[in-house]
Amino acid sequence: MGILVVGSVAFDSVKTPFGEREHVLGGAATYFSVAASFFSDVHLVAVVGDDFGPDQEAVFKQRDIDISGLERIKGQQSFHWKGQYGFDLNVAETIDTQLNVFADFRPKLSDGARQAPYVFLANIQPQLQLEVRNQVSPRVVAADTMNYWIKDYRKDLLETLKSVDILIINEGEVRQLADEANLVRASRRVLEMGPTRLIVKRGEYGAVMFTRDSLFAAPAYPLEDVFDPTGAGDTFAGGFMGYLSATARTDEEAMRRAIIYGSVMASFNVEEFSCDRMLRLTHQEIAIRFKELRAITNFGEADAPERIVG
Amino acid sequence: MGILVVGSVAFDSVKTPFGEREHVLGGAATYFSVAASFFSDVHLVAVVGDDFGPDQEAVFKQRDIDISGLERIKGQQSFHWKGQYGFDLNVAETIDTQLNVFADFRPKLSDGARQAPYVFLANIQPQLQLEVRNQVSPRVVAADTMNYWIKDYRKDLLETLKSVDILIINEGEVRQLADEANLVRASRRVLEMGPTRLIVKRGEYGAVMFTRDSLFAAPAYPLEDVFDPTGAGDTFAGGFMGYLSATARTDEEAMRRAIIYGSVMASFNVEEFSCDRMLRLTHQEIAIRFKELRAITNFGEADAPERIVG
Repeated sequence: MGILVVGSVAFDSVKTPFGEREHVLGGAATYFSVAASFFSDVHLVAVVGDDFGPDQEAVFKQRDIDISGLERIKGQQSFHWKGQYGFDLNVAETIDTQLNVFADFRPKLSDGARQAPYVFLANIQPQLQLEVRNQVSPRVVAADTMNYWIKDYRKDLLETLKSVDILIINEGEVRQLADEANLVRASRRVLEMGPTRLIVKRGEYGAVMFTRDSLFAAPAYPLEDVFDPTGAGDTFAGGFMGYLSATARTDEEAMRRAIIYGSVMASFNVEEFSCDRMLRLTHQEIAIRFKELRAITNFGEADAPERIVG
Repeated sequence: MGILVVGSVAFDSVKTPFGEREHVLGGAATYFSVAASFFSDVHLVAVVGDDFGPDQEAVFKQRDIDISGLERIKGQQSFHWKGQYGFDLNVAETIDTQLNVFADFRPKLSDGARQAPYVFLANIQPQLQLEVRNQVSPRVVAADTMNYWIKDYRKDLLETLKSVDILIINEGEVRQLADEANLVRASRRVLEMGPTRLIVKRGEYGAVMFTRDSLFAAPAYPLEDVFDPTGAGDTFAGGFMGYLSATARTDEEAMRRAIIYGSVMASFNVEEFSCDRMLRLTHQEIAIRFKELRAITNFGEADAPERIVG
């Protein structure tokens, strides 16, 4: 088994300048696992209500995602997020959040799930992340979080971060967590909190990865049609962890490629609502876009500069 | 002679969260020419008043910049810009603009200046840019502009753009000029206005370069200490044009490297007020940072993806 992901499976109602959808499949663990499934086996641990039916199940089935760890609560509804985006697709406005079954979520891991060599703790309460963390001993554990936990559950979050290898959060969250406006300084502070690697998601500006002694900057794939950014960050994390699991490497180069795969997967996901685009995605399309990202970042061989400014 | 630049030489009063300076040397043509001078001969055409004295002249002299085309108006003051930045250093707030001698600026080109193979039309009134453009027949003519001209001098600007090879403007300006929120679409529209190449400056997120059939994305050099972003865009353009002039190439790879040199130069300039950092800068430092930018964008050889997602 490759990857264990613990997080939300939800329904989203989303409005963008280009259209809207009511009650479509969403949730961090959903987006993550669909993306990761292109590279690796994925075992998902989450909770849903009665409204999770055959249509939703079919999505996971199609992607061969193991949902034996998906708890179902009778007589209740799944987590529901309602939000919208303006023309600045980097900023989501939450209209309503109904936690429903998610309010009492206590992740339960099977013996098999505990053996997973790669673990992703999606954006849930830091204490629950830590509970999961303490039950596993993977090669790599990565985590996400959000402004709410950073602000109101800071102590718990700092405890959790102590045993996370890779933190994958967005730029504003890095600044908030470190209480520092400059991203380079902020990242250094976050790396003192536990993670040995920090991946900073910057939406249409790509991603930056910091360790104590290395730095990698990757652009996002430039898209003409961004339809719905919901799930982009989790899809990015799914591509990232999926590639790590597939390659079984944890060196710097592998991490960098993993980021490019993350960017590639996210670029597809935002082209349509929910996971619609991902369910039609092919390995060939992924390989092509990976190559394109290489092509758009390439600026030739290493021996040139001295000739000009020697 | 390498590069002709026409634009402003000014005095700036700048306040940032890290300090402030009154009446220091600034102006687009100043920043541009100081950066370009590391790679190429530069001939500057601008206008100043009595307040431009030996101290300012020494800056250009130190960088071997030809200021024989710098007009001096007796009894008047130079262009003065007063502005400040908050913690979001991407956004400058203009407090006061005194055009002074710049209000009646009519660029006068010597016979020598007209022969320059590289011309940069810094951010001035589009009609003046066109007047200069019509007096030269360079290998490459690049231009900058700003929101004010895009909004209130649109017709003039569109006329000027017809005979510009490379337009170098920031992201918001691209969207405004094209009246389109999506950057990829907006860039396509701008390329229909005349320029064969559009370079989009994105501040701390780097730069993107579009042609009809190519795309290049470059990160900014990640800095721990950004002291004063004033002049970053013009310094970028100076590094870009300087490298083009030095290499005498106009192919895609040369353009890409030119962007990296532009980023490198801009990264130094923002480390201190005015041109202070640039006046201590060495070719070796430039070469090192160029290499670092290569290192932080590199993600290995080209043959990997198929092995993973074949």
